[in-house]
Amino acid sequence: MTTFGMDAAEFRRRGKEMVDYIADYLENIEQRQVYPDVQPGYLRSLIPEEAPEQPDSYEDVVRDIERVIMPGVTHWHSPYFYAYFPTASSYPAMLADMLSGAIGCIGFSWAASPACTELETVMLDWLGKMLNLPEDFLAGTAGQGGGVIQGTASEATLVALLAARSRTVRQIQAQSPERTETDIISKLVAYSSDQAHSSVERAGLIAGVRMRKIATDEKFAVRGETFSAMLEEDKRKGLIPFYFCATLGTTPSCAFDCLTELGPICNAEKIWMHIDAAYAGSAFICPEFRPLLNGVEFADSFNFNPHKWLLVNFDCSTMWVKKRADIIGAFKMDPLYLKHDHQESGLVTDYRHWQIPLGRRFRSLKMCMWSSPKSLSVGVREDQRFEISADVVLGLVCFRLKGSNELNETLLKRINSARKIHLVPCQLAGRFVLRFAVCARSTESHHVQEAWAHIAEIASELMQELQH
Amino acid sequence: MTTFGMDAAEFRRRGKEMVDYIADYLENIEQRQVYPDVQPGYLRSLIPEEAPEQPDSYEDVVRDIERVIMPGVTHWHSPYFYAYFPTASSYPAMLADMLSGAIGCIGFSWAASPACTELETVMLDWLGKMLNLPEDFLAGTAGQGGGVIQGTASEATLVALLAARSRTVRQIQAQSPERTETDIISKLVAYSSDQAHSSVERAGLIAGVRMRKIATDEKFAVRGETFSAMLEEDKRKGLIPFYFCATLGTTPSCAFDCLTELGPICNAEKIWMHIDAAYAGSAFICPEFRPLLNGVEFADSFNFNPHKWLLVNFDCSTMWVKKRADIIGAFKMDPLYLKHDHQESGLVTDYRHWQIPLGRRFRSLKMCMWSSPKSLSVGVREDQRFEISADVVLGLVCFRLKGSNELNETLLKRINSARKIHLVPCQLAGRFVLRFAVCARSTESHHVQEAWAHIAEIASELMQELQH
Repeated sequence: MTTFGMDAAEFRRRGKEMVDYIADYLENIEQRQVYPDVQPGYLRSLIPEEAPEQPDSYEDVVRDIERVIMPGVTHWHSPYFYAYFPTASSYPAMLADMLSGAIGCIGFSWAASPACTELETVMLDWLGKMLNLPEDFLAGTAGQGGGVIQGTASEATLVALLAARSRTVRQIQAQSPERTETDIISKLVAYSSDQAHSSVERAGLIAGVRMRKIATDEKFAVRGETFSAMLEEDKRKGLIPFYFCATLGTTPSCAFDCLTELGPICNAEKIWMHIDAAYAGSAFICPEFRPLLNGVEFADSFNFNPHKWLLVNFDCSTMWVKKRADIIGAFKMDPLYLKHDHQESGLVTDYRHWQIPLGRRFRSLKMCMWSSPKSLSVGVREDQRFEISADVVLGLVCFRLKGSNELNETLLKRINSARKIHLVPCQLAGRFVLRFAVCARSTESHHVQEAWAHIAEIASELMQELQH
Repeated sequence: MTTFGMDAAEFRRRGKEMVDYIADYLENIEQRQVYPDVQPGYLRSLIPEEAPEQPDSYEDVVRDIERVIMPGVTHWHSPYFYAYFPTASSYPAMLADMLSGAIGCIGFSWAASPACTELETVMLDWLGKMLNLPEDFLAGTAGQGGGVIQGTASEATLVALLAARSRTVRQIQAQSPERTETDIISKLVAYSSDQAHSSVERAGLIAGVRMRKIATDEKFAVRGETFSAMLEEDKRKGLIPFYFCATLGTTPSCAFDCLTELGPICNAEKIWMHIDAAYAGSAFICPEFRPLLNGVEFADSFNFNPHKWLLVNFDCSTMWVKKRADIIGAFKMDPLYLKHDHQESGLVTDYRHWQIPLGRRFRSLKMCMWSSPKSLSVGVREDQRFEISADVVLGLVCFRLKGSNELNETLLKRINSARKIHLVPCQLAGRFVLRFAVCARSTESHHVQEAWAHIAEIASELMQELQH
């Protein structure tokens, strides 16, 4: 087979060079500055204004990786990267992604590539069992539930919300056939924690429904009593509560909404409970963390990101539902060009009905290549000048200098300007807080110790300046 | 760096083996049966019920690729694959995806990885220039427009619709501040061809707006007159037309809506015109096909899939907008943990505001590795028993046996059961039609000739049986 610009023989050679480049990059990532020095617009000046008439040689392209790309990369897999949340990476997952790219099938239906669909269903059952999810969430051979790989947790939140919207409209119309969909939707109200990820609010915006934020307790968790009071208030106003997105491991501080209080309320009120455990979910495989998931039995859907912690490269956000009919019902469209012979048999899953995009990659391949995860433990040494701003449960530490928000903003600015480590802030109860998330697979305790020493030193400099 | 299960040294070895496996797979893909023989549920019985306690050896995993995965793969890159539409594949794009996986950054904001964001903006400018898009769609250094890589065309359609919904609500509220968003949305109406992809209707469903299908002419294209009549009717009813999704290269038959008639109507009526050229778009790089894009100057947004034809592996769906503020305005959320120093400067793009998911991969890398595409030409030989069901413009031929729908359904069933080639049907003007899409990069004219001979032979057998 001859290809444009590169034949199989050249791919064999270049592919092996690339494998070595990747191994070199990851083995030596510590030596690269974690956050780049470039200014906005840096890249445009480094390459031509238009695509060259004659393609560059492959050697030129490779040279451009170090000349053009790498100077502008934020190295998420550096052991000095403590920003946002981790994104996973492992060699086996990379091998699987290579294979997935080569097979290059688009798995929107069972027929479009049976292996792509079936491996996904079975892998999600495996993973669900590892998390000890209730049987209802598994597909098995005759289950009503099952799992799907979404690209991101944002999509899982949205898909669950759309399924809930559609289920509620159907339920209400069954009792009151005279009510229009528009009228019902205009009365719907969804809920989430005031600590929930911005994508939850965005899901409400996309779906065109009201979204209310529930105030959290001193641990930044949603409690049943607060939620109940809000529901009563909204029902008195004639609104229809229909969806609650609980968070396990919030983005600002890794707080856990109180599922065992909230779940029964949702069930009694016929409110769809979705659990967004994007960050924390991976930990539930460890028996010592599994109690944090108690209450999942009340949920309609549950989601977490193996691509954060489970050594599976982005994107791989796993979602389970108890009743697949609910989710399919929200989306199903069956044009003739997507129909196939096995469509109506119960064993067949057409994942296009489970997600926002039509097309999908063969992502389950990377799930069957990982091995068991290792739980992280972070030792934050005591320093009287600092305070811890939220419980440390998993791999995130929220802290600040005792003092003003301005002081802490300056501290963070200096830390990030020094370019040794990289972290991002959050706001907790009106206070500006620094988030230290252990991210890279290669982070060892000496890196964390170094990072703390570095932060303490910058803090000392800052305090000294202020005293003068 | 030690990794769980595989260190860098082993990755160097396994990665090179995988490169060879991929090259072998693609060089010999013709020998694999294009469509698998497996029955639904085949895979579950081939692997354990639960994840093994002890991880398999890597050798076992590799053996399972041929034992478990490959028997269930529909080989989209086989030269005997003529179903759906093509999905692109090239060795340079695969190398780029390997690198993207290794860098493994999540590019939701400029700061999260400046190179990831900036390369995307510049590559979309390059590609826009190759398509000779109006200047308004380019970002440049001071433009109001620009491009973004979405995962799929479905997402582009939805994002454009949501931007249009939000723009219209704002415009109406500016004039009539007393009108609520809910009230306005309940009056909105979106339009598309009755030949449009199912994802267009689905976008309306997700956004909770009315979607009307416009009847097409004898070439399956939407014409200005039909559209105008529909608009007048809807406005008389008190509805608010706000969005029209034009299709260039419909999925059933590769028809082209008449942009030069439709564009001025949309502009006059302040209707957002989005162009979905998912399949056809790649062809517009060739000067002989560029006239098919005339009228794009009237559009607010334009999208096509380099991952169909431009040798860039899935997923890579490029979208341009004239006013980025419109699209950002529909979604913008700025929690503290995603803010960064350069946020408010004009040069900086935070692509999370341009899309449904938050996270995004470094997809532009594969765009700078491709070389120029080759236009396809299909020679369908005349056979008196068959009729061509729609104009053949690009790489799709819609045909059927002269006769009943049942006859053609049987013909397709036999073709696909024979497992030599694979195609899917569509419906055109109430008739069941076979779609022959030239898909694989490795398809040469002898494959197409063989495929036609094969189809003709099956048709002969079928006709003979019917005569007896």
